[in-house]
Amino acid sequence: MGKKLIVQKFGGSSVANVLRIQNAASRIAGCKKKGASIVVVVSALGNTTDKLIELANKINTNPSEREMDMLLSTGEQISVALLAMAIHKLGYEAISFTGAQVGIITDSAHTRARIIRINTDKIKEALKANKIVIVAGFQGVTLDQDITTLGRGGSDLTAVALAKELKADECEIYTDVKGIYTTDPKIEPKAKKIGLITYDEMLEMASLGAQVMQARSIEVAKKFDVPIHVRSSFEKDSGTWIIKEVKNMEEVVVSAVTLNKGESKITVSNVPDRPGIAAKIFNELAAKGVSVDMIVQNVSHLRSTDISFTVNKTEAKKALKVIKKAARNIGAGEILVDTDIARVSIVGVGMKSHPGVAAKMFGVLAKNKINIGMISTSNISISCIVQKKFAEVAVRALHDSFGLAK
Amino acid sequence: MGKKLIVQKFGGSSVANVLRIQNAASRIAGCKKKGASIVVVVSALGNTTDKLIELANKINTNPSEREMDMLLSTGEQISVALLAMAIHKLGYEAISFTGAQVGIITDSAHTRARIIRINTDKIKEALKANKIVIVAGFQGVTLDQDITTLGRGGSDLTAVALAKELKADECEIYTDVKGIYTTDPKIEPKAKKIGLITYDEMLEMASLGAQVMQARSIEVAKKFDVPIHVRSSFEKDSGTWIIKEVKNMEEVVVSAVTLNKGESKITVSNVPDRPGIAAKIFNELAAKGVSVDMIVQNVSHLRSTDISFTVNKTEAKKALKVIKKAARNIGAGEILVDTDIARVSIVGVGMKSHPGVAAKMFGVLAKNKINIGMISTSNISISCIVQKKFAEVAVRALHDSFGLAK
Repeated sequence: MGKKLIVQKFGGSSVANVLRIQNAASRIAGCKKKGASIVVVVSALGNTTDKLIELANKINTNPSEREMDMLLSTGEQISVALLAMAIHKLGYEAISFTGAQVGIITDSAHTRARIIRINTDKIKEALKANKIVIVAGFQGVTLDQDITTLGRGGSDLTAVALAKELKADECEIYTDVKGIYTTDPKIEPKAKKIGLITYDEMLEMASLGAQVMQARSIEVAKKFDVPIHVRSSFEKDSGTWIIKEVKNMEEVVVSAVTLNKGESKITVSNVPDRPGIAAKIFNELAAKGVSVDMIVQNVSHLRSTDISFTVNKTEAKKALKVIKKAARNIGAGEILVDTDIARVSIVGVGMKSHPGVAAKMFGVLAKNKINIGMISTSNISISCIVQKKFAEVAVRALHDSFGLAK
Repeated sequence: MGKKLIVQKFGGSSVANVLRIQNAASRIAGCKKKGASIVVVVSALGNTTDKLIELANKINTNPSEREMDMLLSTGEQISVALLAMAIHKLGYEAISFTGAQVGIITDSAHTRARIIRINTDKIKEALKANKIVIVAGFQGVTLDQDITTLGRGGSDLTAVALAKELKADECEIYTDVKGIYTTDPKIEPKAKKIGLITYDEMLEMASLGAQVMQARSIEVAKKFDVPIHVRSSFEKDSGTWIIKEVKNMEEVVVSAVTLNKGESKITVSNVPDRPGIAAKIFNELAAKGVSVDMIVQNVSHLRSTDISFTVNKTEAKKALKVIKKAARNIGAGEILVDTDIARVSIVGVGMKSHPGVAAKMFGVLAKNKINIGMISTSNISISCIVQKKFAEVAVRALHDSFGLAK
């Protein structure tokens, strides 16, 4: 069409009430006025989804996942209708669609469905008629016409997938923060908004606790090279662009410091040092659906070792039960649980080619008299488990030492 | 299948909160246990629909009807999911469907769509698998996959239409009253529950102000001879059966007394007594979308007449504006508006073959010193407009005189 095509996603906080819906409508109309073709993806209003889950749990503590999707998908349906009405009020043409109506076809894994394909005919037709197209995020439909949802943060995925499918020029993610920060500004007021960041760094940050965007959607954006612009619904300034490669990136060693206080550490001591023992432990956990995060094993004793791992706090009890049984079976020793931990991480594609980054991190923590409980490294991140009470001190010290406040 | 097939409809008050949803689930499960095949139609929880309308009006006082349907249809979708979860909790299999999913195909008259046809394949398949089928009331879908709604009380229509299409043995309408009463028990405590009533009487009562069932759904039930059982969600006793013909009906002259306080009377005086004048007035009203109810014309003066009619109170202002203009054009006289009126009616198929019913009605009102402002009669009803302050007295007197309290 020659026109610029933009996919805009508005999260729950950006449409939490009537005023915010009107604000979102104004932004969309403003963009339309400049001549772009616009497809908007919306989440459920504010905390609607949580409220619906609560209601369902009052009725059935173990609700059918198919019915859960039927229930939760109403949240986004309400949003798209109201946003369309708000845009009409401003004198622009807009039309709303559910995930089923636009043909976001998914598999039948209810509550965590994966998109198989998107039929964009309806959207293209509406765009051709110069309408602003509003699509319910987070939801799809199986080939059998059953309604599905894409899991927490699924609206991000809807937006990125639509941007890919429609070959959009950009995908804007509107949220209640100004963009991606070098660290949480609530912990370190000197935190700076990052102008450009790579998919890989963003993925790493998402998995390390940064909650601005859903990890799966970043994976899809990376795979299909969809440029993402994370920005505030309430400000004109541009936010953070998430893209493939950042020029001059070698100059920036560390891009951000992240913090995750949501994990607990479990240590199994005196694990017999035989092949297959670790597999046994973690197979049991997987079988019970417990996701394990960091795993560290030290050969520290004669013929036995200690294995430590972290799990989401909410799964600690379940994990402990599984592990106690497993420990008995394999003849391991004491089990230690530490809920008083925090994971502090530094992220940056630059560190790959800069030796000594890890050493510097450990040095900064040591200088601040912070003991390191576990260490884990990836290609572009280094994480340390520290005592929870030192978490904020650690974040500020690292943020400062790696020059992120500049 | 040989099994008895029952369509059960639960109105908003029957699923207004968690406890009531559980109560509805118990009733459904109890019926299933007895061996019937069951299709349930549900309305939105309590006053959900009104709340959504309110929300929409805050955003746009003149919302698009397509978007309104998109918005309102979420109410029933929430109900079906929760009800399915509640039934699962009781150990029974159930599956929910939206109007679109079961294929309730309508025209595209948004907010007041008419059902064109119903594809019952999905329902039949689920019934064959011994599942309780739960269908969202009030909604359908156009051939273009746009969501539509059927207008106020539309869930009744969904239930009756499904009962017809599935050739159900009966259609149960669960509500918060015990059935249809000889008159409003709030006005006359001696009012009795009616055991059997004909479609025609029920239709007449609905149009005269009784609000238990939507008139359109009774029309459909009559057309296709679907037996309806209106009953309480909270009691075991049977309620009122609405059927084609009631045996021994000739013994019952009057079945019920109804009251409607929602109308205003407009009188156009000194209307020239020429052909086509009345048509002119009522054409103007129709053109502006004002529904007129009772119309009475008396030839009372030389070459001129008075025309009185009633309209819904909410449309009185609009009607007056139209009428004032029309009166000037046709050279009529003064316009009088009376908002202080009530319509009291007696309904009964028996009155067709019993002369003197009207005379008796007028006599009862006269004996109670109640002046009659307008009179209108149909095949099976007689209505009198009286002063609003006498309405309850009139209802009680008629209820007593026609032996309905016995």
